[in-house]
Amino acid sequence: MSFTHFDDKGAAHMVDVSAKEVTARVAVARGAVTMAPETLAMIVDGRAKKGDVLAVARLAGIMASKKTHDLIPLCHPLALSKVAVELSVAQGRVEIEATVKTTGQTGVEMEALTAVSVAALTVYDMVKAVDKGMQITDIRLVLKDGGKSGRYEAE
Amino acid sequence: MSFTHFDDKGAAHMVDVSAKEVTARVAVARGAVTMAPETLAMIVDGRAKKGDVLAVARLAGIMASKKTHDLIPLCHPLALSKVAVELSVAQGRVEIEATVKTTGQTGVEMEALTAVSVAALTVYDMVKAVDKGMQITDIRLVLKDGGKSGRYEAE
Amino acid sequence: MSFTHFDDKGAAHMVDVSAKEVTARVAVARGAVTMAPETLAMIVDGRAKKGDVLAVARLAGIMASKKTHDLIPLCHPLALSKVAVELSVAQGRVEIEATVKTTGQTGVEMEALTAVSVAALTVYDMVKAVDKGMQITDIRLVLKDGGKSGRYEAE
Amino acid sequence: MSFTHFDDKGAAHMVDVSAKEVTARVAVARGAVTMAPETLAMIVDGRAKKGDVLAVARLAGIMASKKTHDLIPLCHPLALSKVAVELSVAQGRVEIEATVKTTGQTGVEMEALTAVSVAALTVYDMVKAVDKGMQITDIRLVLKDGGKSGRYEAE
Amino acid sequence: MSFTHFDDKGAAHMVDVSAKEVTARVAVARGAVTMAPETLAMIVDGRAKKGDVLAVARLAGIMASKKTHDLIPLCHPLALSKVAVELSVAQGRVEIEATVKTTGQTGVEMEALTAVSVAALTVYDMVKAVDKGMQITDIRLVLKDGGKSGRYEAE
Amino acid sequence: MSFTHFDDKGAAHMVDVSAKEVTARVAVARGAVTMAPETLAMIVDGRAKKGDVLAVARLAGIMASKKTHDLIPLCHPLALSKVAVELSVAQGRVEIEATVKTTGQTGVEMEALTAVSVAALTVYDMVKAVDKGMQITDIRLVLKDGGKSGRYEAE
Repeated sequence: MSFTHFDDKGAAHMVDVSAKEVTARVAVARGAVTMAPETLAMIVDGRAKKGDVLAVARLAGIMASKKTHDLIPLCHPLALSKVAVELSVAQGRVEIEATVKTTGQTGVEMEALTAVSVAALTVYDMVKAVDKGMQITDIRLVLKDGGKSGRYEAE
Repeated sequence: MSFTHFDDKGAAHMVDVSAKEVTARVAVARGAVTMAPETLAMIVDGRAKKGDVLAVARLAGIMASKKTHDLIPLCHPLALSKVAVELSVAQGRVEIEATVKTTGQTGVEMEALTAVSVAALTVYDMVKAVDKGMQITDIRLVLKDGGKSGRYEAE
Repeated sequence: MSFTHFDDKGAAHMVDVSAKEVTARVAVARGAVTMAPETLAMIVDGRAKKGDVLAVARLAGIMASKKTHDLIPLCHPLALSKVAVELSVAQGRVEIEATVKTTGQTGVEMEALTAVSVAALTVYDMVKAVDKGMQITDIRLVLKDGGKSGRYEAE
Repeated sequence: MSFTHFDDKGAAHMVDVSAKEVTARVAVARGAVTMAPETLAMIVDGRAKKGDVLAVARLAGIMASKKTHDLIPLCHPLALSKVAVELSVAQGRVEIEATVKTTGQTGVEMEALTAVSVAALTVYDMVKAVDKGMQITDIRLVLKDGGKSGRYEAE
Repeated sequence: MSFTHFDDKGAAHMVDVSAKEVTARVAVARGAVTMAPETLAMIVDGRAKKGDVLAVARLAGIMASKKTHDLIPLCHPLALSKVAVELSVAQGRVEIEATVKTTGQTGVEMEALTAVSVAALTVYDMVKAVDKGMQITDIRLVLKDGGKSGRYEAE
Repeated sequence: MSFTHFDDKGAAHMVDVSAKEVTARVAVARGAVTMAPETLAMIVDGRAKKGDVLAVARLAGIMASKKTHDLIPLCHPLALSKVAVELSVAQGRVEIEATVKTTGQTGVEMEALTAVSVAALTVYDMVKAVDKGMQITDIRLVLKDGGKSGRYEAE
């Protein structure tokens, strides 16, 4: 078995998907940012009143998903038909979930994972002045559907 | 106490750093990608022979650090003077470390964290056909120096 | 009634267009840059001889329309099939009109409006050393066709 | 008199600023989006409850100011030290004001004007499903300071 | 006869391809970097041991092909379905070949030529400290197929 | 001797220039596009009347020089203080020359070479419908000054 992103001489390439079917595809990814309880409280507090960290991070995640092919060297450019990013405070941390859809020849896992990652980085950026010990963690694919390889569900 | 990225009406803004001193700054961030042992073995194997996943991810991380201000809404654009990204196989996972330097009015934590995140996403992308259960995890700042707030060391 | 770019919790998202039909779509937008008569005379003069402000602005508008999804947070990326930007001196000001076409699941109003806006900004940039009192004004949609909502014509 | 953005043969070029002094510079630009009173009421209403159009537009304006040199062909790339965009409902329309600072060899008028323009386009995008007759208007420079040409104040 | 990228008034525009058929298209471009024999020997040597110039250039070429429409003013944005870039040492120089595929309404010659050009520039960048006399040369289209104008083969 | 863009383990990195002096730097690069005499005649003809290929290519070259660090993986981002691109018809081909200046810690050779390359690609794009046998050739550095390594002049 070998990685699809290398040819038989070991050179990286963008895989030929031109013979793959155009189908409806969806991917959902999740991740989290852990932080001190007081930091989390500030986020919750700001949300209610003024300074909504999670709203800024949501937009950053959506915008980043559109740049995925510009960030990940061997990703195909794709016309995304839906991007949603949800951030919530749960289990003592900021939880992030991104859902991406396309109708195309290849999947959108990387777009969902990129949205989660950049939303998490944005939370970090906005809060770093009060808490440098935050961690971005547990970024993973939880659902993928459409395309030849079928449905994948992790949780 | 409140977040610096919001003004007193709660509106997000890019903080005014024009009165801050121009100083030499450095930041180091770390993170990891966890995966099945067989997947990790394929990466190690490919590295020795052909298809170097880690070399591709290293470049993606370096290039992404230059796009940080384009990804994180309230980050200042900065002229980076050094970016290095190291990937290694250790403790049963791929470990990533990024070091970024600038001479400027604001720090480079986000540039280092972005380099780690995109290097991790690139590892994921190249390996996802054989292992969908990978996780990107433990992304954190380990060192920051230069600027008024002084040295921060996490590990 | 509510805005389509927010979900029912008020979170911004990129609308799901995956169920919409792929149809031929067109949009036309217009706008203008007002300025002192002597400034306008310089543009006309330069055009005839050397230093064609309007030709530079036209290209800037065309190139910007391709970046629309990168500028407007909730815009879908689209494969544009035609972009034309016309600039002319009329009614004592620079008049700008952009026409954009696509075959896709969503309209191209924002691409046409972005082309007009950036062409106007480019006129401003090239002329600002001689006239700081210019104004960019009257940017609006004049035609939209294709898609479920049918034809819209403003003028 | 002639435009600085063309050489003596009429060829467009990015002006040589290497001999100009590095000074603190600021620019303020303003503009507006006009719309039907009911549309404006929806924006005000959404702001209070859910779906904050103006917060999304503010972020889009800030992010766009960092892309100015990528949009306007002959603009110099600049390290911005502050960007703030304010949106408010006044005089029956959405009013936008952007303030940009840098310490550099050239001014930031275009960055402020670009922030206003893209914030206005984003308002348009989010509201266009309910009101196609909106207009983006009165985009102009209101303040510029720093640099050899001195202070300019329009209002 | 006239150039298709200008309208009948001589204004540049992005050609309307909306009436063209969606077909499978491919393009192959080639080019080379000439340099001193000792420089070439260093590349070959580094490749075997450490510091693979050609692997870095290959990735840069692939990534650049995805930016073609952002670089070439009148190029249409396209969803590329395959990009491969091969670099080899032959005839006393570095030879580069790029192959690009799409299924769309317009060809991918520019994407293949851009991949070759940026791969060549990257070779230059990595080696320039030891050899400033390098030249990038012989960049040309060698194959184009798909679309109305039929097959073109140069070599 | 070894390449500066690799560390001692052979990993690519962006070289640390933080200890280098900030000095005024300039670079000049040249290149050409060869084509059939009739194609060249069309360019000359269009220039005089309508459809100025060289003016479009000039702008594309200027804009591309600002993207150099985004295209070449290990290039440092730089604040360019001047970019000029000249295109002329000479010796039976289109000749291109780019001049770039900065005040910074590293040189601008790559910015000048990128401007020439993208200007050449743009000429190719605009003319390719009438001549597929064009070649982009002889791209090289002709002058570099400023910085520790001193003046380099090739021609």
